[in-house]
Amino acid sequence: MAFPSGLVELIETLSQHGVEQAVICPGSRNAPIMLAISRNLAIQSFSISDERSAGFFALGLALHSKKPVILCCTSGSAALNMAPAIAEAYFQEIPLIVLTADRPAEWIGQWDGQTIYQERIFGANAKQYFSYSTQDHESPDEIWYRNRIANDAFWSAFSAPQGPVQINIPIKEPFYPEKGAALPIAKPIRKIQKWIAPKSLDIATKTYIQRQISISSKIVVTVGQFQQNPAIQSAIADLMKKGIPVIADSIANLSGIAFDSHDLILANTKTWECLQPDLHIHLGKSFVTKRIKQFLRSNDKKQEWQINPYPQTLFSDPFKGLQHVFEFDEVDFLNELVLLNFSEKQQAYFQAWKKADEIVSTKRSTSMNEWNELGIFQNIAQALPSSNAEIHVANSLSVRYLNWVNFVPKGIEVLANRGTSGIDGCLSTALGAAQGNPNLVISIIGDVAFHYDKNALWNAYIPNNLRIFVMNNQGGGIFRNLDGAKDLPELERFMETQQVFHAENTAKDAGINYISVKNKHELLHALSYFFLESEKAQLMEIESNSSINAAALAEYMTLFKS
Amino acid sequence: MAFPSGLVELIETLSQHGVEQAVICPGSRNAPIMLAISRNLAIQSFSISDERSAGFFALGLALHSKKPVILCCTSGSAALNMAPAIAEAYFQEIPLIVLTADRPAEWIGQWDGQTIYQERIFGANAKQYFSYSTQDHESPDEIWYRNRIANDAFWSAFSAPQGPVQINIPIKEPFYPEKGAALPIAKPIRKIQKWIAPKSLDIATKTYIQRQISISSKIVVTVGQFQQNPAIQSAIADLMKKGIPVIADSIANLSGIAFDSHDLILANTKTWECLQPDLHIHLGKSFVTKRIKQFLRSNDKKQEWQINPYPQTLFSDPFKGLQHVFEFDEVDFLNELVLLNFSEKQQAYFQAWKKADEIVSTKRSTSMNEWNELGIFQNIAQALPSSNAEIHVANSLSVRYLNWVNFVPKGIEVLANRGTSGIDGCLSTALGAAQGNPNLVISIIGDVAFHYDKNALWNAYIPNNLRIFVMNNQGGGIFRNLDGAKDLPELERFMETQQVFHAENTAKDAGINYISVKNKHELLHALSYFFLESEKAQLMEIESNSSINAAALAEYMTLFKS
Repeated sequence: MAFPSGLVELIETLSQHGVEQAVICPGSRNAPIMLAISRNLAIQSFSISDERSAGFFALGLALHSKKPVILCCTSGSAALNMAPAIAEAYFQEIPLIVLTADRPAEWIGQWDGQTIYQERIFGANAKQYFSYSTQDHESPDEIWYRNRIANDAFWSAFSAPQGPVQINIPIKEPFYPEKGAALPIAKPIRKIQKWIAPKSLDIATKTYIQRQISISSKIVVTVGQFQQNPAIQSAIADLMKKGIPVIADSIANLSGIAFDSHDLILANTKTWECLQPDLHIHLGKSFVTKRIKQFLRSNDKKQEWQINPYPQTLFSDPFKGLQHVFEFDEVDFLNELVLLNFSEKQQAYFQAWKKADEIVSTKRSTSMNEWNELGIFQNIAQALPSSNAEIHVANSLSVRYLNWVNFVPKGIEVLANRGTSGIDGCLSTALGAAQGNPNLVISIIGDVAFHYDKNALWNAYIPNNLRIFVMNNQGGGIFRNLDGAKDLPELERFMETQQVFHAENTAKDAGINYISVKNKHELLHALSYFFLESEKAQLMEIESNSSINAAALAEYMTLFKS
Repeated sequence: MAFPSGLVELIETLSQHGVEQAVICPGSRNAPIMLAISRNLAIQSFSISDERSAGFFALGLALHSKKPVILCCTSGSAALNMAPAIAEAYFQEIPLIVLTADRPAEWIGQWDGQTIYQERIFGANAKQYFSYSTQDHESPDEIWYRNRIANDAFWSAFSAPQGPVQINIPIKEPFYPEKGAALPIAKPIRKIQKWIAPKSLDIATKTYIQRQISISSKIVVTVGQFQQNPAIQSAIADLMKKGIPVIADSIANLSGIAFDSHDLILANTKTWECLQPDLHIHLGKSFVTKRIKQFLRSNDKKQEWQINPYPQTLFSDPFKGLQHVFEFDEVDFLNELVLLNFSEKQQAYFQAWKKADEIVSTKRSTSMNEWNELGIFQNIAQALPSSNAEIHVANSLSVRYLNWVNFVPKGIEVLANRGTSGIDGCLSTALGAAQGNPNLVISIIGDVAFHYDKNALWNAYIPNNLRIFVMNNQGGGIFRNLDGAKDLPELERFMETQQVFHAENTAKDAGINYISVKNKHELLHALSYFFLESEKAQLMEIESNSSINAAALAEYMTLFKS
């Protein structure tokens, strides 16, 4: 049997575990893996050439499906091009199973093409590594081992905290079955099913929580990045009703439910004293902006809890005051919390947050008359559909605007690559998430991140439910807002990525409708039809000036500082 | 002093060692490194946004300057985007000094932006790793250590076999000097100079060589990839005159000096027996095509020598018969060789190669009338300038055509990314090599490799001495030539990268002259002015059909099989 052994079984095992999608990058060495995948009828395959983009596309598929996605590439530097997406998946805890075709070990360093050191190629930025042998005539023990690797790889990726795993697969020629021949049929495979105990609260823990709550009178809950979850949203709404202020990041998917203007509220440092909690309960990942972290770090008298059902081995302590980690289900925890009796003073504390939030809300509705990104975000916000849509917001300035503008309608999910906060794959991730998605998928991205990842549009998978806003300020506008950076003579040349490209030609290549917007009139007109159903994906490029943007933002921030 | 300590000394030490160029990728965490570099007047700095392209651009700079080039990026996934170029530099043995800005260790895993595991991020595909502290108030021992790292990093990259090294630099805020303040002046730095003994032949070795030569009568010299070197060219010419056949790859830069049609000569397996050597001497890296390796591997009776002044720690044994490695200077070795007395039978052996080469040369001049890539390469070959030019040929099909067509004029240097043989940075490498280059820099690249690396043209460094041929066959045409692959129903969808983009829009964005060529008449006309001086870089996109190309190539190969 010429066809490399065990590949059909590997893919079949993953498939039986529920893996349904694969991204295959063209190549020769990985042809047998490609055949095993694409001829498995239970798996939907995508072919994408630029491995960097393919990695993020797979991440987007997994974000949408909540299942591990296979990513397959040829030998050599191909896998290295996937490394940025693998790191993002690792830190964002998204399950990917990366199958890297390799030359047999004896060929490394022999000056042959596409041969590099591929073992553990993603280093500490992947969750697990396996080497999968495709030798014929394996012993029963080796066949047992191959089956175990398939089971282990699935569960390593899928067990929380989820993440990417690499299976390196050395393959010898020939790569193809005889002309016209079918692949071998998978031998009976063994699937190991894992049953996981629910992380429900026990009596002892409940008692401890109750006691601590009873001696606290300024309890605050903060929520960092969190995927949309109706049970969480409902529990948070109950907490708010009960008088527990919940402060949510713009990517916590609690828009309209929790207080989400923390960065503006805390811009006025005079509010800090009365808003400081005596018990801080955090869930979700971190906040995008720095201010709320500074606010909470500045208080070393409070208790700090983290609810994290699946923490990493080492603690994440973003507020520098972590004392208790509760490895319990967040919804169970919050639902337990809401039943407790709170101190009478807690109401006053809630009202302090509520008042601060109302003041900010009034000021925040000040409309920006000049043409700048803040106003542009406001205008887009008003036009966003209120359902059947999701927003993929890119790093790094775009995601920050969401904390400054009341942007996201309640019920619309917001996603962002905040695992590594790179600009390297924001658009590709949105493309992946848009596949087979009944929602409108809206990408909001700056010009630098757009061009960096423009190969997101170099494939055959651009669905008509995709909408892209390119916020073109001719460079990395974020640096204009940083004290110190903005005064450097090197700002333009070496920090900002002064770039002069427009998105029009890229859109043209990709067969996407292109709309150029340069003023408010054009923007409002374009927004009147941009979200309607269309035969093609649409891209709206909105031009503004980064100096004016920075000045407007500074002026806007002044509103909140007192 | 807020400015991170020791950075000015680090850059000054590298500069005093002769480092003259740096590629800086915009970012915030690396701003202090950027300042230390860009304010060092002895260093020419380039700002490039896409780290993947920036890495290959730096490789191109180093290829041209033959000196280590600094590559500097911000923290997070930025460094991972450079990994493909680092692996290419490692296997192609090109010196790069990669300065990766990092967060301080205490921030890893704390859900902060752009924070990943950066230690040894390039793994086994880089030559050396250093961690460079920028703490203030270091002890004298620590300052001694910093200076040593600067010296070690330079010499690790620059000592043969050369390669890329990583210096990871954790940096704390603030990143910028006080407004208007100058950087600290470099403290006196200590530079360690290394003196390296010449690798000349000693008497004992000469005696051994002489004895072996005297008992051999079919001595062949093969040369794999080798940068252009007049002393080597002259030594090889002398060997040929003396009756030692020298078989050179198309990227060995021995065009018109050695026999360079090995792939066509050996297509006729009937010639194999009389062409087999009894002593095979190899220099340079490997051959691009497989046939000559198969030919030499099939002979286990010969002696096999490798002349390699700076071999890697582990042997490279591409012909599977290596017995002697001579760690000596290649020119010294060849010049010694040519002085020896050869067996009378050696002449007959030389004549056998010469005759085979002549037969192939006649057939090779058969001009292709149909419109296909073979004919296109022939036409371009005839129009190439005979001096003041260099050719960067991309993976993977383009570089193969050079072994099939008498392509490169004598004296024109040919370069190719054959370290990892990736398609990920061929154009960026050419761009880097074109900087400050008095020659015309000609890139020959397929449509897939072009679009993969199109961010090579997303920067401010596109010189008018650049000429790009995009060989557009709407996909990865190479698979059409592979037995087994060409019959698979999955060929088009999953192997070939069926792609429909043209280069026109990319050229337009980059401000490059674009010429579209679809037939021989248009090609000849375009070639009549393409290489002339121009105010802008020029890109010629030549369209052909991959099925017709494959058929023409198969027909052409038949010519040589008997």
